[in-house]
Amino acid sequence: MKVEIIAIGTELVNFRVSDTNSNFLVHELNHLGYQVNSLTLVKDDEAALEAVFSAALARSDIIITSGGLGPTHDDLTKRYVSKVLNRKLILNTEVLDNISKKYEEKQIEMPTNVQKQALLPRRSVLLNNKYGTAPGFICNENEQLIICLPGIPIEFEYMWTYEVKPYLIEKFGHLTQVIMIFVRTFGLAEIEINELLTPFFQQNGLTWNLMASEAGVDIEFFLDPTICSSYNYDSSKLKKDIKELLGSAIYAWDNISMEEVVGQLLSRHGLTLAIAESCTGGLIAHRLTQIPGSSKYLDRAIVTYSNRSKHELLDIKSSTLEEHGAVSSIVAREMAIGVRKRAGTDLGLSTTGIAGPEGGSDEKPVGLVYCGIASANECSSQSFRFFGERYSIKMKSSQAALNLLRQYLEERKPK
Amino acid sequence: MKVEIIAIGTELVNFRVSDTNSNFLVHELNHLGYQVNSLTLVKDDEAALEAVFSAALARSDIIITSGGLGPTHDDLTKRYVSKVLNRKLILNTEVLDNISKKYEEKQIEMPTNVQKQALLPRRSVLLNNKYGTAPGFICNENEQLIICLPGIPIEFEYMWTYEVKPYLIEKFGHLTQVIMIFVRTFGLAEIEINELLTPFFQQNGLTWNLMASEAGVDIEFFLDPTICSSYNYDSSKLKKDIKELLGSAIYAWDNISMEEVVGQLLSRHGLTLAIAESCTGGLIAHRLTQIPGSSKYLDRAIVTYSNRSKHELLDIKSSTLEEHGAVSSIVAREMAIGVRKRAGTDLGLSTTGIAGPEGGSDEKPVGLVYCGIASANECSSQSFRFFGERYSIKMKSSQAALNLLRQYLEERKPK
Repeated sequence: MKVEIIAIGTELVNFRVSDTNSNFLVHELNHLGYQVNSLTLVKDDEAALEAVFSAALARSDIIITSGGLGPTHDDLTKRYVSKVLNRKLILNTEVLDNISKKYEEKQIEMPTNVQKQALLPRRSVLLNNKYGTAPGFICNENEQLIICLPGIPIEFEYMWTYEVKPYLIEKFGHLTQVIMIFVRTFGLAEIEINELLTPFFQQNGLTWNLMASEAGVDIEFFLDPTICSSYNYDSSKLKKDIKELLGSAIYAWDNISMEEVVGQLLSRHGLTLAIAESCTGGLIAHRLTQIPGSSKYLDRAIVTYSNRSKHELLDIKSSTLEEHGAVSSIVAREMAIGVRKRAGTDLGLSTTGIAGPEGGSDEKPVGLVYCGIASANECSSQSFRFFGERYSIKMKSSQAALNLLRQYLEERKPK
Repeated sequence: MKVEIIAIGTELVNFRVSDTNSNFLVHELNHLGYQVNSLTLVKDDEAALEAVFSAALARSDIIITSGGLGPTHDDLTKRYVSKVLNRKLILNTEVLDNISKKYEEKQIEMPTNVQKQALLPRRSVLLNNKYGTAPGFICNENEQLIICLPGIPIEFEYMWTYEVKPYLIEKFGHLTQVIMIFVRTFGLAEIEINELLTPFFQQNGLTWNLMASEAGVDIEFFLDPTICSSYNYDSSKLKKDIKELLGSAIYAWDNISMEEVVGQLLSRHGLTLAIAESCTGGLIAHRLTQIPGSSKYLDRAIVTYSNRSKHELLDIKSSTLEEHGAVSSIVAREMAIGVRKRAGTDLGLSTTGIAGPEGGSDEKPVGLVYCGIASANECSSQSFRFFGERYSIKMKSSQAALNLLRQYLEERKPK
């Protein structure tokens, strides 16, 4: 099955916006057992689009496009898909009704050019757009599929997941039954993980991909029954082996974030939290408040960017700041204690460090970070040395602090 | 001149390696006045490569490829370029000598398959590789150019800069100097921007692209002197016209973020800031602290996720919270006043709203957000209604609050 992806938008060709949709889609297709032959980024230009669509039709069985479905003059996808397929564009009244309703809900008058979004190539399968007004569609032409999705990532991902993927599985089935296990870790380097995994797994024909980011190292394990048949592995046995090798570095068995894991643990334990951030500058609070319902366990966060605010808001003694400096394990601990006490929460979490690029010294270099955690009875801190740009150091620090909280919660039984 | 780029490598299509060569090349080409029509990533596969090369030859004047020139079995570029051009591969003795010398210098015996690298399509222009052994080449076929470069970034960039770029400039000169102006706006919808721009610009042959995101709408204007020659526009006159049409919705004339703009304004005015965040949950503080040196103007940020913390940390009266609710314009203003007063800063900035998906009501729906700003003498608030997911609402709210601060600072002279 020859599969190709076409991402439409001048901003993509010019690298002003990165093509996250195609990245997402390639991984999804791989998991279904499809290999992608080519990925074309094409600008919003009539001749370029027509040439790219014609070439795709001449060589591929499944063509998936993103973008160019909106209401403005540079949204050209439908016009040229219908041209190369020689199908007329027809007004779809179901879509028009949906669009009208969305405008009614917002109490905004519907602009006339929005109607353009209700035009679909004749005989196409409508794909509903949960979040936006531009629908997607599938054209089935002589056993070739042309699948057109909107470019806005949330719309694209939803439509893929709930409309296109089930359509492909129903039509073709899963291509191969590869077992895939996805694991997220924090605290181990890629090279350490490879050393832990290689002796055990390589001999059995298991393969894995490592993907390192500020969030840690994600690992994808592939178990192809045609290769590992003698091994008779099942998914739960494999998970057990992975857990034994990587231990508490594993924070998730699915593509969920550290903040989701921590949020679930706080909810399950029925504990409340207050945060004192210095070098992470609000990022921990931002991440935790991404989770719906986080107001149940997060009482407050204090971003203390000045020494005065550390003193005023967290009761850090000026003498401690002078003697040890704001970036020190004792200040991390006192920040966690101070914010917990003032807020009256069960737990306090803190960060203090040097995010750079300025402000480092030989003794306290850029990337030195302390995280602290405090409960009513105990208090501890951990130091880290991170490398990278300012954003990278902030992100890794927030991940380290949340991971400290995760490990604390996992070691304790819920109330 | 129709230009396209083809990047060859399975690791690129699967997003395991990011295609930095094409990113570099697009910007280089744009500066020479060339627009890139499409960029294709294709895997190391015989049929896929042949199809991609054939399609490119049928539609483009200049084709630039990267990758697939090495000695291993999956390096297929030369074989398929010579096939689609119907030119034989010929051993180039100059290249073979160069490769032998490199191995002699390293005192390593030359593997036989390395000789493959000395094969070039008949009548091609040799491009020397300063860093590696795989040469590049240019085939000139009926006024079409096929330019093949190696995939290793340092080799690619060197060969482009010292071999290909001078070749193109000698052959074609600098192309038209298309003037490109990039503008970032917040507060206007795509459709409103189109309505403002169309009557004025479309008649003069100016084109523009709109890119909408949580940060607002970015616009790229293109002024092609060959089309707009009668208009005699220059870049500064165009900027003036754009400014008149879009007014204070414009927050940047370059690809810089709202937090950078606000950081620069705070520095220039010599003013300090404290932030009180509710629905944005630390995101404003996180964004401002992304900017190196932000500790000079940002004193603190308080994320008050509970009513008690709003009362304790910002002096919001319980009666106000009861009477108007936490999501109200008066609470937004009192939060800005309270945080400014407690911190002793020049300015206070606040947000309160409903980020969803839960917590909305008919009277106060999800996406209702108030932003407040306070100085020693004045205080104001603005209300917004945003749509989308929780992240999207948080992001738009933080952008709205920073924009409120930007407009406040732009309307006042620095001290």
